[in-house]
Amino acid sequence: MTSADPGHPAPAPDTGLLAPVRAGTAVEALTDDPALVRAMLDAEVALVRAQASLGLVPPGAAEAIAAAAAAPGRFDPRELALRARSGANPVIALVAELTAAVEESDPEAAARVHLGATSQDILDTALMAVSVRAVDQVLADLARVARDLGRLAAAHRDTTMPGRTLTQHAVPTTFGLKAAGWRSLVLDAYDRLKAVRDGLPAQLGGAAGTQAAFIAYAEAATDVAGPDLGLRLSAAFAEQCGLAEPALPWHVLRTPVAELGGALALASGALGKLAADVLVLSRTEIGEVSEGTGGGSSAMPHKANPARATLIAGAARRVPALASVLYASLVAEDERPPGAWHAEWPTVRDALRTVGGMAATAVELVTGLRVHPDRMRTNGDATEGQLTAERLVAALTPLTGRAEARAAVTRAGRASTDLASALGDDPALRGLVTGERLRALTDPAGYHGSAGTLVDRALRRPDPEPPHTVQGAP
Amino acid sequence: MTSADPGHPAPAPDTGLLAPVRAGTAVEALTDDPALVRAMLDAEVALVRAQASLGLVPPGAAEAIAAAAAAPGRFDPRELALRARSGANPVIALVAELTAAVEESDPEAAARVHLGATSQDILDTALMAVSVRAVDQVLADLARVARDLGRLAAAHRDTTMPGRTLTQHAVPTTFGLKAAGWRSLVLDAYDRLKAVRDGLPAQLGGAAGTQAAFIAYAEAATDVAGPDLGLRLSAAFAEQCGLAEPALPWHVLRTPVAELGGALALASGALGKLAADVLVLSRTEIGEVSEGTGGGSSAMPHKANPARATLIAGAARRVPALASVLYASLVAEDERPPGAWHAEWPTVRDALRTVGGMAATAVELVTGLRVHPDRMRTNGDATEGQLTAERLVAALTPLTGRAEARAAVTRAGRASTDLASALGDDPALRGLVTGERLRALTDPAGYHGSAGTLVDRALRRPDPEPPHTVQGAP
Amino acid sequence: MTSADPGHPAPAPDTGLLAPVRAGTAVEALTDDPALVRAMLDAEVALVRAQASLGLVPPGAAEAIAAAAAAPGRFDPRELALRARSGANPVIALVAELTAAVEESDPEAAARVHLGATSQDILDTALMAVSVRAVDQVLADLARVARDLGRLAAAHRDTTMPGRTLTQHAVPTTFGLKAAGWRSLVLDAYDRLKAVRDGLPAQLGGAAGTQAAFIAYAEAATDVAGPDLGLRLSAAFAEQCGLAEPALPWHVLRTPVAELGGALALASGALGKLAADVLVLSRTEIGEVSEGTGGGSSAMPHKANPARATLIAGAARRVPALASVLYASLVAEDERPPGAWHAEWPTVRDALRTVGGMAATAVELVTGLRVHPDRMRTNGDATEGQLTAERLVAALTPLTGRAEARAAVTRAGRASTDLASALGDDPALRGLVTGERLRALTDPAGYHGSAGTLVDRALRRPDPEPPHTVQGAP
Amino acid sequence: MTSADPGHPAPAPDTGLLAPVRAGTAVEALTDDPALVRAMLDAEVALVRAQASLGLVPPGAAEAIAAAAAAPGRFDPRELALRARSGANPVIALVAELTAAVEESDPEAAARVHLGATSQDILDTALMAVSVRAVDQVLADLARVARDLGRLAAAHRDTTMPGRTLTQHAVPTTFGLKAAGWRSLVLDAYDRLKAVRDGLPAQLGGAAGTQAAFIAYAEAATDVAGPDLGLRLSAAFAEQCGLAEPALPWHVLRTPVAELGGALALASGALGKLAADVLVLSRTEIGEVSEGTGGGSSAMPHKANPARATLIAGAARRVPALASVLYASLVAEDERPPGAWHAEWPTVRDALRTVGGMAATAVELVTGLRVHPDRMRTNGDATEGQLTAERLVAALTPLTGRAEARAAVTRAGRASTDLASALGDDPALRGLVTGERLRALTDPAGYHGSAGTLVDRALRRPDPEPPHTVQGAP
Repeated sequence: MTSADPGHPAPAPDTGLLAPVRAGTAVEALTDDPALVRAMLDAEVALVRAQASLGLVPPGAAEAIAAAAAAPGRFDPRELALRARSGANPVIALVAELTAAVEESDPEAAARVHLGATSQDILDTALMAVSVRAVDQVLADLARVARDLGRLAAAHRDTTMPGRTLTQHAVPTTFGLKAAGWRSLVLDAYDRLKAVRDGLPAQLGGAAGTQAAFIAYAEAATDVAGPDLGLRLSAAFAEQCGLAEPALPWHVLRTPVAELGGALALASGALGKLAADVLVLSRTEIGEVSEGTGGGSSAMPHKANPARATLIAGAARRVPALASVLYASLVAEDERPPGAWHAEWPTVRDALRTVGGMAATAVELVTGLRVHPDRMRTNGDATEGQLTAERLVAALTPLTGRAEARAAVTRAGRASTDLASALGDDPALRGLVTGERLRALTDPAGYHGSAGTLVDRALRRPDPEPPHTVQGAP
Repeated sequence: MTSADPGHPAPAPDTGLLAPVRAGTAVEALTDDPALVRAMLDAEVALVRAQASLGLVPPGAAEAIAAAAAAPGRFDPRELALRARSGANPVIALVAELTAAVEESDPEAAARVHLGATSQDILDTALMAVSVRAVDQVLADLARVARDLGRLAAAHRDTTMPGRTLTQHAVPTTFGLKAAGWRSLVLDAYDRLKAVRDGLPAQLGGAAGTQAAFIAYAEAATDVAGPDLGLRLSAAFAEQCGLAEPALPWHVLRTPVAELGGALALASGALGKLAADVLVLSRTEIGEVSEGTGGGSSAMPHKANPARATLIAGAARRVPALASVLYASLVAEDERPPGAWHAEWPTVRDALRTVGGMAATAVELVTGLRVHPDRMRTNGDATEGQLTAERLVAALTPLTGRAEARAAVTRAGRASTDLASALGDDPALRGLVTGERLRALTDPAGYHGSAGTLVDRALRRPDPEPPHTVQGAP
Repeated sequence: MTSADPGHPAPAPDTGLLAPVRAGTAVEALTDDPALVRAMLDAEVALVRAQASLGLVPPGAAEAIAAAAAAPGRFDPRELALRARSGANPVIALVAELTAAVEESDPEAAARVHLGATSQDILDTALMAVSVRAVDQVLADLARVARDLGRLAAAHRDTTMPGRTLTQHAVPTTFGLKAAGWRSLVLDAYDRLKAVRDGLPAQLGGAAGTQAAFIAYAEAATDVAGPDLGLRLSAAFAEQCGLAEPALPWHVLRTPVAELGGALALASGALGKLAADVLVLSRTEIGEVSEGTGGGSSAMPHKANPARATLIAGAARRVPALASVLYASLVAEDERPPGAWHAEWPTVRDALRTVGGMAATAVELVTGLRVHPDRMRTNGDATEGQLTAERLVAALTPLTGRAEARAAVTRAGRASTDLASALGDDPALRGLVTGERLRALTDPAGYHGSAGTLVDRALRRPDPEPPHTVQGAP
Repeated sequence: MTSADPGHPAPAPDTGLLAPVRAGTAVEALTDDPALVRAMLDAEVALVRAQASLGLVPPGAAEAIAAAAAAPGRFDPRELALRARSGANPVIALVAELTAAVEESDPEAAARVHLGATSQDILDTALMAVSVRAVDQVLADLARVARDLGRLAAAHRDTTMPGRTLTQHAVPTTFGLKAAGWRSLVLDAYDRLKAVRDGLPAQLGGAAGTQAAFIAYAEAATDVAGPDLGLRLSAAFAEQCGLAEPALPWHVLRTPVAELGGALALASGALGKLAADVLVLSRTEIGEVSEGTGGGSSAMPHKANPARATLIAGAARRVPALASVLYASLVAEDERPPGAWHAEWPTVRDALRTVGGMAATAVELVTGLRVHPDRMRTNGDATEGQLTAERLVAALTPLTGRAEARAAVTRAGRASTDLASALGDDPALRGLVTGERLRALTDPAGYHGSAGTLVDRALRRPDPEPPHTVQGAP
């Protein structure tokens, strides 16, 4: 038995054991092999119904095909996968199987199966239909994340915390502004993904994108034809599929797939930023947030790990590479490329599943996130007023000039663990400014800048409406 | 001397020797180090002018700073680069140098340099300003490519050529449809890149995105302040810069950069598809198109290589990886990440330059492209009518049923080099169909399907208006 | 039900429907979730046996654990995957389940399960064990590919074909040299992958890589300890696992995983080059090779597609991106990173499966490859002797000087479809060289250069011995 | 003027303004355009000298060519870059220019320039020669980093610090083990990069890799020929170049370039891990290490940023993507691919420069790194003994059984800020274990496990000898 011999045992289900970020989330079953097979059969049915709607095929034939396509258990994904090797796609075997199924009940109708279509019409359409469903789930979860982040931002509009740049305390910020920023990214991702989703098109070009066979069969069998028959059929097909109608067959014009990849990478990055911040703020020494129910450990009884943020962060490292494969597949030679198209299939699914898992996990993360304003204050105070050094320079500048103000603050910062006192003792400042004023100036809670106003503005950007039909919608 | 000692000789200009796709194109000088330094100085001037416009700074100080910033030769990129190592960005040294320059003419104004800003405000704003200029050049070139492809599509609306799938002749298509497809991708890229470009924002958040220092200096020095001062300043600054005003400071909300990367990858893919097709069609054995002036060879006197398509194809292999770096940089922890931000800088420039070079090269490629309809016909005829096998099956199906039609065509295809004759002799068809009809059915030029109509529809999508200000606009 | 609720239906098996390159190949079942669970259980058993071998644990306890671990059906991958979400890895649940299973038969032994270990010890070791088995299968298939390519190279040592550069005919080469080149790449990949495979290590560091708990349990329970106990245990464990013993625990020293990724990318590229050449040479217009049984088409009866080369070429576009994720995961902060480690798991498996499928498919491709020397000759002749233009310049240079030789050949090339005749008529050459000599000089079969010698040298590099234990070994 | 018109201004030097990680490091000038031009000229000279050494060319001609190639200022990179556009490589123009230069002094010798070679011979050889020089610099810097890390590891062999997993304190480790781990990775990278470097080959295949023209010129001009002439010439050429002799011309067998990319990605990851740890440990709240001279800030007087670690971390995000481009370029069709080869050029240089800058920066980072054992102790103590919870469970297990031991430790951890006291009061433990023993068990400094032994073993791996010839060698 050679290593490619189909006698090898079939792999067991991919349960998410190595990708817990998506284990048990809704997007898994939406994108698994049976869902793909179902979507391919749906595309075959949509085609013949569209042909029937234009009078090219008898309505009875369409319904006979629909009935055969609905036969439970007939279309075995593993069998189709194995047979896909000889023609480099699974549709050839699917069409053979569907034709055989129709033969059994309505031999005449069997001749109408896949009439004029090419494998890519069916596979692309199915992949788009599955993508729409998976993206709708992602959108629903992103909408929930955005809503919950909005609540966090409003609740913590004025909660002071240390702003950190290049790992160091910089100046104060608020947790509200941080949450509003997370939400802003999530909404960016939502908007982009929604726009791309709404444009995902059906595919109906025939063997080389000219739709010639659809017309040839029409001419041979009916008196319904004319120069725009292909376009009318394409429109009817897209409507049947619930997908957008493309201006041109896009067998090798892969904008939809590339932009789907980009939009998923944007969503991945948005959630990855959220997770990265949660991970920093969860550090033992920082402790400003924690996950509602931290993960345990097989070795250490006391650990409460930021498990959800970890899963999201891990996933966020993978999606940009997947998107790069999809962008690269734009370079698709001829009317069907030997490779660039094939590289898209598992990559799109992996990206959908990974981002789907990230979004579902982010719902859990955000819903359960616990915020610890006390630790934020403690941490800010630990640097002894240095968080407000910038402000002191500004406030003292009118008194001493900017350079001297800067020098005084730097001296004080070095000299002491209490910046206000040290400044009060500074020879350059003595008598110029009161201790009370200095103390007020070094209070991080008084140095939020525009943070509150920015949060208000950010929250005026409305929450998206989640799609109605998906699982888990609130 | 250690290997990081600044005494090492400075590198010579990067002339494009290893990236000829962009050698000598307009985008190079638009994005080089002096252009970046200039844009950073522009940002500093825009800031102080915006502050002056709100009464925060005396107008004279703004103009003194503008004058100092314009000093030719004062701001040496190499010097700034070397000094950038100690603080991980070049703005610190630039501000020091600019302050020193202002000191010389107007010591009072010197205190207003960079007032309240952080390095990232200046660097991000400069990078966006440079990106806008480079993207405008790309858009202008894409517009020209689209226009010329539109001409090709119209001129060859009905030029028959073999459609090829998985490297094999499939059914006929037209060169017009192929050119219309290329144009469609280029327009997709144009539209996306234009939308992203129009949203590229100025950055003005101060040390941690709260704009606090802008307000602190305002409060200290003037009676102009109030909760919305930061937002008003940010709006005035964006207007001065000619960039979009962001809803929030985006130090760590990197949607603009990630989407710029995605849009450039889309443009790269669109041009890469064009180049990939030109490369196939230029093959010695195919010869259906050729570049106006093919490249020579250092070894072989007879070679006329598709040099421009080669340069574009080479570049198209690099851009998706660059985009993946930018998408990954969305995961930017804290208020300024130690690394994710820094990874963007050379990557954005490389992507702008590479795609800029591709677009400029594509203008040359498309302008000079020679189309050889005779070779298209010869190649199509070489497969002895098999290009139309699909059509024959369709046409014969009403006579014999689909299965027998398919069998007859397959038999004839094996038996003969003249499909029409072989079919005429086929026992299953003899008497059912005339030789003349068979001959008509096997003419590739008669089997274009919707190609013409699709070209017409595609060409109704209008050519974009190129930006007016860029070099090389038509 | 939220979208992350574990009540969602489990995904069906990933059958390869979207990745036919590996559908039905041996590597699928070697790397599926049950195989991973089995490998994790094997690691737990290896640990306690290693501990028993050092006297740290009663031998009976080890065997009780081994027996419980062997219970069929007890360790459900889906269940483990779902429970992996709360701790960000599946080992915690596996240990709980294994402990419960041991409790049932030998409560005392239950206390010895996973004693001192951390989740990463088990997961890393399991992933390495699975990788070794998958890589062995890849190596076996690469060895077969190399052997068959060696046969092709020997058989076609002197078969003339056009050398092609930048898509154009350049000078002649031989199919033997091409096949020897493919083999050389495959052997490079074999050698690298073998070297990496032989170094894949077991992991046994405990919670933070210090092995402290192993020692603590030893100290608490026995009098067996000492400074080198951890190292001795690690060595015994590696031996039990059949994996290399690492110098240090490598929880965050990820050289093995990164190098595995690189070696798989090298193998992918080697096979991708082979596929790319087969695709070019299979083109309808070129036809110099064809797959033994070309793939069919759902639309076109005459198509015989290079389906295996297509599958390989598609896969080759994905693996470099996967490798980039693994290289990036080297940047793993602390003693266990929140994300970088997790990103490796699905990526390693995808890379193993994809390259495993490619290698198995390449065996089929190479075994069945049909070579058409007649078409090679016809194609070479079609350019009318221009393949030998370089040679003519060389041969004529002593007669006329190099510049004039070059000019004469260029003139003749333009003037005529028969280079030898045209040269014979060339005024600069008339009388200097005979027609017979010119005809000999323009024969591509006489201009192989070192090709034969190079093939001989390349074939002296020996075929690798395939591993003995894998499926499909010859 | 179109956008690709060579009249556009040349870009200014790329000074490192956007890539300060390499600004001013030795690798910049080693890899700049003049260095490449010089290496190409060196390759031309090496070729003719190799030919002279075999009697194929008069020695005087070789020296005339060498003299012309040495003409200062004659070979302008920008000019060559612009002329590279028409043939898709810069060698054609270089050869023309070199030939013209030789013509001026020795017209006879001019006919020997580039005799039998193809552009790729020269460019590949030059790129390898430049790579060797750049890699030698990287190796020298890695050797210094390893040596300094070895010192740190030895000095801090027993310095206790908190081990951290998934951002949380886990169990104690030592700074010595951490430094030994960093060194181990750096040595892995050194070893791999050195092995790849030593195999970087010269290229001498002629137009399509058959070396035919070298033989043709030899046959035409001399009586020196024979079947192994090509191989002897190739060996002589490699020796002249100081590069490895390849078994086959590798125009499209790109193992050397792909493996160089992989080895550079490994080095990038090794240094990236070091930087990632330094960044975590430098955090304001952690403060366990700091850079010798932290970077300043344009806004905040008190900041001391980990600037070098930041630069390294930023660079580490870019290199894996570059490596993926190089792995993908293995898929190089025909005897010279239109694109895959061209994509390598700027990518290799970018990778060399980036990793070169990282290594030089890492020397500075490690040399200046300040370690703060007091903060390590304080941080460990802050979790109130929880770092040793695992140990307590182990130590108490013989007294209470493992489950009860775990429960007691968990109870105590929740109840108190002093684990030893809380345990002493625990009803399950009262009377079983003394307070003194509990206090000893909760001392992190007593729970290093194998850390010291592992450091000792790791340090027995010897420091590499740095290459002698590079700049900055110690």
